[in-house]
Amino acid sequence: MITGTTQLIAHIGYPTRTFKSPMIYNPYFEREGIDAVVVPMGCTQGDYPALLKALFRLTNIRGAIITMPLKVATAGLVDGLSPAASIAGACNAVRRESDGRLVGELFDGEGFVRGARRKGCTIEGARALVVGSGGVGSAIAASLAAARVGSLTLSDVRADAAAQLARRLAEHYPAVRVATGANDPSGQDLVVNATPMGMSDSDPMPMEVARIPQNAFVGEVVLEREITGFLAAVQARGCQYLVGTDMLFEQIPAYLEFFGFPVADVATLRSVARLGD
Amino acid sequence: MITGTTQLIAHIGYPTRTFKSPMIYNPYFEREGIDAVVVPMGCTQGDYPALLKALFRLTNIRGAIITMPLKVATAGLVDGLSPAASIAGACNAVRRESDGRLVGELFDGEGFVRGARRKGCTIEGARALVVGSGGVGSAIAASLAAARVGSLTLSDVRADAAAQLARRLAEHYPAVRVATGANDPSGQDLVVNATPMGMSDSDPMPMEVARIPQNAFVGEVVLEREITGFLAAVQARGCQYLVGTDMLFEQIPAYLEFFGFPVADVATLRSVARLGD
Repeated sequence: MITGTTQLIAHIGYPTRTFKSPMIYNPYFEREGIDAVVVPMGCTQGDYPALLKALFRLTNIRGAIITMPLKVATAGLVDGLSPAASIAGACNAVRRESDGRLVGELFDGEGFVRGARRKGCTIEGARALVVGSGGVGSAIAASLAAARVGSLTLSDVRADAAAQLARRLAEHYPAVRVATGANDPSGQDLVVNATPMGMSDSDPMPMEVARIPQNAFVGEVVLEREITGFLAAVQARGCQYLVGTDMLFEQIPAYLEFFGFPVADVATLRSVARLGD
Repeated sequence: MITGTTQLIAHIGYPTRTFKSPMIYNPYFEREGIDAVVVPMGCTQGDYPALLKALFRLTNIRGAIITMPLKVATAGLVDGLSPAASIAGACNAVRRESDGRLVGELFDGEGFVRGARRKGCTIEGARALVVGSGGVGSAIAASLAAARVGSLTLSDVRADAAAQLARRLAEHYPAVRVATGANDPSGQDLVVNATPMGMSDSDPMPMEVARIPQNAFVGEVVLEREITGFLAAVQARGCQYLVGTDMLFEQIPAYLEFFGFPVADVATLRSVARLGD
């Protein structure tokens, strides 16, 4: 129950209608007796800088979860960025440090790495292909680099985007071998679709599925549907895979830790969440 | 349950520890299936103007409940004031009109009038004494004037405060006879202690209780304790009276109406509230 001592986690984005976080965190907080609440706040780009600043002056703010369309703007509004947030140029979490500085984190990639590991995928030393060098692709590439992947191939139809991501990765993780190139999955241990391809039935495949090694682990970021056309083809090929919502849930423990709350495992969080369907 | 469609009522003040509104409104919203939540926000004077502005740009803000120490500042930050808010120079509620303007209301006096009426007190035509011309006293005086009290005597140890309140009342309610003077309750039908006297045991009485007519109705605004020393003496004298928390609860239906929610009666609201003790 919300009282005068309750601490706030602002969930900021627009539109709010599709927000899932309140139904994931709040039932968990309630069950654990944690005096905090996730509050949806609908905010558009123009109003966001003033809102973020004002919210973090509240005496009972604990942190913020940032979603579309504000993740990129956030990177320019905080005082410090984690390597993942810096490489991707985006944040999905903000907290205030004891010295008053706002710091931004990005857990998309961390969620992917945690989920892949849980499914038995070894990241360390693996040869990885990330198709798509936008926000999510950058986040996943950054977390794979932090997890000491063996090699990282970046592919994007916008060659510039891939090249720039490769440069940022090299700055932060000089030890990782990074290349840019085609979306050819052959010879890879780990293959990620980080493009929006798969949101619609008429989308082309993000890569040639027949060239994915059958022992490769495949990741998908599309959240709109559990099994995209790409994942259906990957299933048919017999590969192990991670769905987009797995990546989402795997982020929650990282968020909880970032905000300084007791951490639960993903299975517990899933069982407590009240997502409706 | 809070979801992405939930509308926000910000309860703004400092400190938040003593806030009661979340435990009054939220159980009611839950019971009635109203998709809204009262969220405590701790904010100090310096941060308040920017916060209020930013909050009312949110796409899912429904309104704000304002408490100490921000009620007076609010009157200077909104675009329009109700007569009660204007006379008292303070607001405890803010909403955004469809044209984007922020309007401020003040329900302290309305809560007093509703509570007094419920206890059988006739306001229309009554001779009333309000001791204390600060925020709450001003609010009660304004609502008594709006309810067409017969005469209104204002008393304050700061004679200036009483005189200024009398002037503001005369502007808005020229038909009401307003006088300033001593805190002598003799000959009054309705007597209100709107001073902080009674918060501490060592406080002197706000007026001479022996001079209160036994058939007079007595109001008390002190919230910290149900029966103050003043009310104990009033009880002993056999007068009908209204306690501070009655005034508080009687405001809730007015707030609900102001925010555009279905209104419940005070008995229902009291029975649903989870105030702990």
